Amino acid sequence: MKEIVAFIRRHQLPATKKALEEAGFSAMTIQSVEGRGKQKGIGGWAAEVDPEMNKLASALQNMEPEIKWIPKRMITIIVQDDQVSSAVDAIMLANKTGHIGDGKVFVCPLEEVVRVRTEERGAQAVS
Amino acid sequence: MKEIVAFIRRHQLPATKKALEEAGFSAMTIQSVEGRGKQKGIGGWAAEVDPEMNKLASALQNMEPEIKWIPKRMITIIVQDDQVSSAVDAIMLANKTGHIGDGKVFVCPLEEVVRVRTEERGAQAVS
Amino acid sequence: MKEIVAFIRRHQLPATKKALEEAGFSAMTIQSVEGRGKQKGIGGWAAEVDPEMNKLASALQNMEPEIKWIPKRMITIIVQDDQVSSAVDAIMLANKTGHIGDGKVFVCPLEEVVRVRTEERGAQAVS
Repeated sequence: MKEIVAFIRRHQLPATKKALEEAGFSAMTIQSVEGRGKQKGIGGWAAEVDPEMNKLASALQNMEPEIKWIPKRMITIIVQDDQVSSAVDAIMLANKTGHIGDGKVFVCPLEEVVRVRTEERGAQAVS
Repeated sequence: MKEIVAFIRRHQLPATKKALEEAGFSAMTIQSVEGRGKQKGIGGWAAEVDPEMNKLASALQNMEPEIKWIPKRMITIIVQDDQVSSAVDAIMLANKTGHIGDGKVFVCPLEEVVRVRTEERGAQAVS
Repeated sequence: MKEIVAFIRRHQLPATKKALEEAGFSAMTIQSVEGRGKQKGIGGWAAEVDPEMNKLASALQNMEPEIKWIPKRMITIIVQDDQVSSAVDAIMLANKTGHIGDGKVFVCPLEEVVRVRTEERGAQAVS
């Protein structure tokens, strides 16, 4: 089993849920986080929406003009080993625009999963 | 060392804290998340509380009538390898009702832990 | 690749961001969490600020007078294997005061990283 964690744009959440569901992944957990990438937030949502707005925002917060913290959604899903690529593909499909800020996907090892209701473990607890 | 992450019902949080503490686990981290399981939230808290309320909620949000996002609590604790089963047991004890929505427990590998105050590492940083 | 997760004091967040950035780590994710350590929150922020305030708070919430849940910041960064120690050092530098509550740092294995925009994987997706 693997844990897949994706950091995506807030407004891509509905499309991502839909893509994952259509790929057969209906169980997931959502968190609100703030992040920035290597670009330190330059070219993030504000620049995409309106470069002038970005300049204004930078001028207003002139202590850290070059760094933007961007609210992101963090999605966590648990999959079988052989489902990793189809889950990652679904997330890519819903989120790839080719612009900075498209997000990242992480695949983490997982040693055990337990479904509390039934005490099922491992693959049974995920399926 | 292992990281144990449990997704549980909000109102089970006090009982879960108590069960973990009685089992010797007093250090933990709590986060608020939203999630849904394989059942897509059907039979979740609203249905348990009042089926009529559930129908009304479904009717109101008729774009996605079958999918409910349920606020959950996410508990993270760090344990020694030989403490995994007693920690998981404590979480099960406090959360197993036999109804859909009891939650899931994940066990993740952990390579290193550092206590910032003392710079202790590994088992010393956890004990 | 490794995932480094640090739980730190809220007011140490700016110093931690700065220390990480100066060490070459500008990409990170921030979450708000609540936690308590082995000391069950005794000697936490309230005691540091003012012991009298702590006693008052304990008296007011007399059902759980000895346990304090402390708001913490959780920082996640992704690094190459050979960057783990410099990232951990940067976090220690910004957070070690020698008092209870300095926080903990965890190093977790990571199997794959994908940058959604470019579909780069592994080290390329992090650099």
